[in-house]
Amino acid sequence: MTDISPAIDPARLDALAEVAVKVGLQLRPGQDLLLTAPVEALPLVRRIADHAYRAGAGLVTPLLSDPEVALARYRSGEEASFDRAAGWLYDGMAKAFDAGTARLAVVGEDPMLLAGQDAARVSRANRANSVAYRPAMERITGFDVNWNIVAYPGAAWARQVFPDLPAEAATRRLADAIFAASRVDRPDPVAAWAEHNANLRARTERLNGQRFSALHYSGPGTDLTIGLADGHEWHGGASTAKNGITCNPNIPTEEVFTTPHALRVEGRVSSTKPLSYQGTLIDGITVTFAEGRIVDARATRGQEVLDKVLDTDAGARRLGEVALVPHSSPISRSGLLFFNTLFDENAACHIALGQCYAKCFVDGATLSPEEIAARGGNSSAIHIDWMIGSGLIDIDGLHLDGSRVPLFRKGEWV
Amino acid sequence: MTDISPAIDPARLDALAEVAVKVGLQLRPGQDLLLTAPVEALPLVRRIADHAYRAGAGLVTPLLSDPEVALARYRSGEEASFDRAAGWLYDGMAKAFDAGTARLAVVGEDPMLLAGQDAARVSRANRANSVAYRPAMERITGFDVNWNIVAYPGAAWARQVFPDLPAEAATRRLADAIFAASRVDRPDPVAAWAEHNANLRARTERLNGQRFSALHYSGPGTDLTIGLADGHEWHGGASTAKNGITCNPNIPTEEVFTTPHALRVEGRVSSTKPLSYQGTLIDGITVTFAEGRIVDARATRGQEVLDKVLDTDAGARRLGEVALVPHSSPISRSGLLFFNTLFDENAACHIALGQCYAKCFVDGATLSPEEIAARGGNSSAIHIDWMIGSGLIDIDGLHLDGSRVPLFRKGEWV
Ligand SMILES: [Zn+2]
Ligand SMILES: [Zn+2]
Ligand SMILES: [Zn+2]
Ligand SMILES: [Zn+2]
Repeated sequence: MTDISPAIDPARLDALAEVAVKVGLQLRPGQDLLLTAPVEALPLVRRIADHAYRAGAGLVTPLLSDPEVALARYRSGEEASFDRAAGWLYDGMAKAFDAGTARLAVVGEDPMLLAGQDAARVSRANRANSVAYRPAMERITGFDVNWNIVAYPGAAWARQVFPDLPAEAATRRLADAIFAASRVDRPDPVAAWAEHNANLRARTERLNGQRFSALHYSGPGTDLTIGLADGHEWHGGASTAKNGITCNPNIPTEEVFTTPHALRVEGRVSSTKPLSYQGTLIDGITVTFAEGRIVDARATRGQEVLDKVLDTDAGARRLGEVALVPHSSPISRSGLLFFNTLFDENAACHIALGQCYAKCFVDGATLSPEEIAARGGNSSAIHIDWMIGSGLIDIDGLHLDGSRVPLFRKGEWV
Repeated sequence: MTDISPAIDPARLDALAEVAVKVGLQLRPGQDLLLTAPVEALPLVRRIADHAYRAGAGLVTPLLSDPEVALARYRSGEEASFDRAAGWLYDGMAKAFDAGTARLAVVGEDPMLLAGQDAARVSRANRANSVAYRPAMERITGFDVNWNIVAYPGAAWARQVFPDLPAEAATRRLADAIFAASRVDRPDPVAAWAEHNANLRARTERLNGQRFSALHYSGPGTDLTIGLADGHEWHGGASTAKNGITCNPNIPTEEVFTTPHALRVEGRVSSTKPLSYQGTLIDGITVTFAEGRIVDARATRGQEVLDKVLDTDAGARRLGEVALVPHSSPISRSGLLFFNTLFDENAACHIALGQCYAKCFVDGATLSPEEIAARGGNSSAIHIDWMIGSGLIDIDGLHLDGSRVPLFRKGEWV
């Protein structure tokens, strides 16, 4: 029942597990590993466990989730159940991170799992979950420990990305796209990642040398100025957690990113790709910012879910991340819409609503939440990326003296 | 990958889920449910989730374990990893129970999973796990919340019980045996359980009316006197947890049981069935007790594991449970050796090494651990049942004045 699909190359799946452990996590000998995954991803989970133990892991603990159990609540649950969350489990996870446990998340779920469910219930369940998960999430956004997200080509996800292909062909295409984007189609994937990390590092060093006060975006439906947080720092590719381990949180990753100023965003911006948010699709988003806050938000699809997301808490209407990705990135060139942020955000420039990353400040690891807030870092129970880049977008860096430096023209680095 | 085997009748599997929720747990509306299961048992887990939500569950949280991930540690792990355990997860479980969450465990693993592994590593891993699990286990043995164990016919388990049958036939036979023992082959399984519980209750009321000071066992290789704890109380079938919910912890169950006195066991006893202990088999056990403590222990198979079990802690060499089961019980009559305590203990009279059940005292729910110890209740990180009953065993109840009441003759109630 848990055999690998014949559509998935076992050697590349094993290489992906190796990259997750050696590049994504840089797992340290003796370190425990907490791994979350949809149950369908078990073949990858097993390979990860093996590579983790070979790398000297303490204990590998997988937490496997099942979409059918999730759906059972919508099918048969009482109304009150949609305000419940497994706080005891998330508190345990926070405790594990405090004890130095590394964190690996395998994604691969059906992006439309909850698409047919009542939006109010989905929103209540997400909200209860976000609140309960917050202590654990803060350890991750605060980069207390090395962590990594990696993808498995789940069947329902493949069906969504390739609706016109037979099931096995769809899984094969998605698997190959994941393997290519994750650089495990190269002869030496670990070496390929070292080279990629060096390229991303050159970009962040250039941006950190400039210390822009803001970025200005222009393009169809977009005229937006994003102030950057005081003392912001650009990151991309490999990055060092507070426990001293340099890891690659996202496999794949193409972005360089930093923290915007939560109070200094002005103008209008339109999404360029649909946003798949916890099982529902939000598309055609246009929002208007004033003093950093979204004062108007429209979507051609998923308006109700978008409205509920924005009402999660005070920080949900403000930005926590701004990221630059060239339109020619490999994932963008694949031409695929993955319905998954890990991939789609690496196809396009994006911004994120909600929680900021503490590491995107100079000496971020030493700052208190109050100091981060004083520098313009946003705080929220959510962190939701959405795509605003395309082949038509221009971006300038703005200095306080009014001078402008062209960064992107028609979606590419100048 | 997670479809139900064609060898398992889906209607009976659904009935088993219903019995687990309505009889095993008596799940209360609004109550959360924490469910552990091998990943192979997912078809049953899904049915349980559905019945739980229909019964008004708050949130159902399954924790799925995978044998291949467990084996990866033995194949590729460093020595130090065998002293690690997921304390953060077990502490979280304890917290969930304190908040009123019900507990359901699905068993069905390969009983020989770790049979080929290094005994010292198995023992160290079990020990680390027992110690870490203890806070959560104490909530269960202390009967803080309603809990239940139920079985799924896993393929490797079926292979072990029916080594001469093809895989699908073995699974069908094991499934049918589980369904019969769990009374889901009856027209109205919930009503059948009500009748069975009434029969077991009549037996416990008779024994509790006698207040024996000890039981005396005689049979081949056995001449044993088991003192009963002061203020002991016999239980069997349905029982009421401290949260006020009357549940059936074991599905199936045929036993009536109470707490022996940890310091008052004398004589010699031989096991009558092999003991499957966390993946290894211990057989042909003969032990000698003096003042309640095992002073000599031999096994024809698994001696090394047995020795390590007995060295877990001070309470591991003393008894925590004594249970009476007629040799004519349905499970015994099946003639099968299940290599699983939940079934095999219900085929025969048994005793358990280690932790006692607080509920097996008059007003047990109100007693402190110190008061339980003062009455003779044993304390340990382990609780391991082993079978000492057969068609040849005689048991008498002993009163303090020396009078004897015959209870069992040739394995049957007098
Ligand atoms: Zn990003
Ligand atoms: Zn982001
Ligand atoms: Zn028992
Ligand atoms: Zn027992």
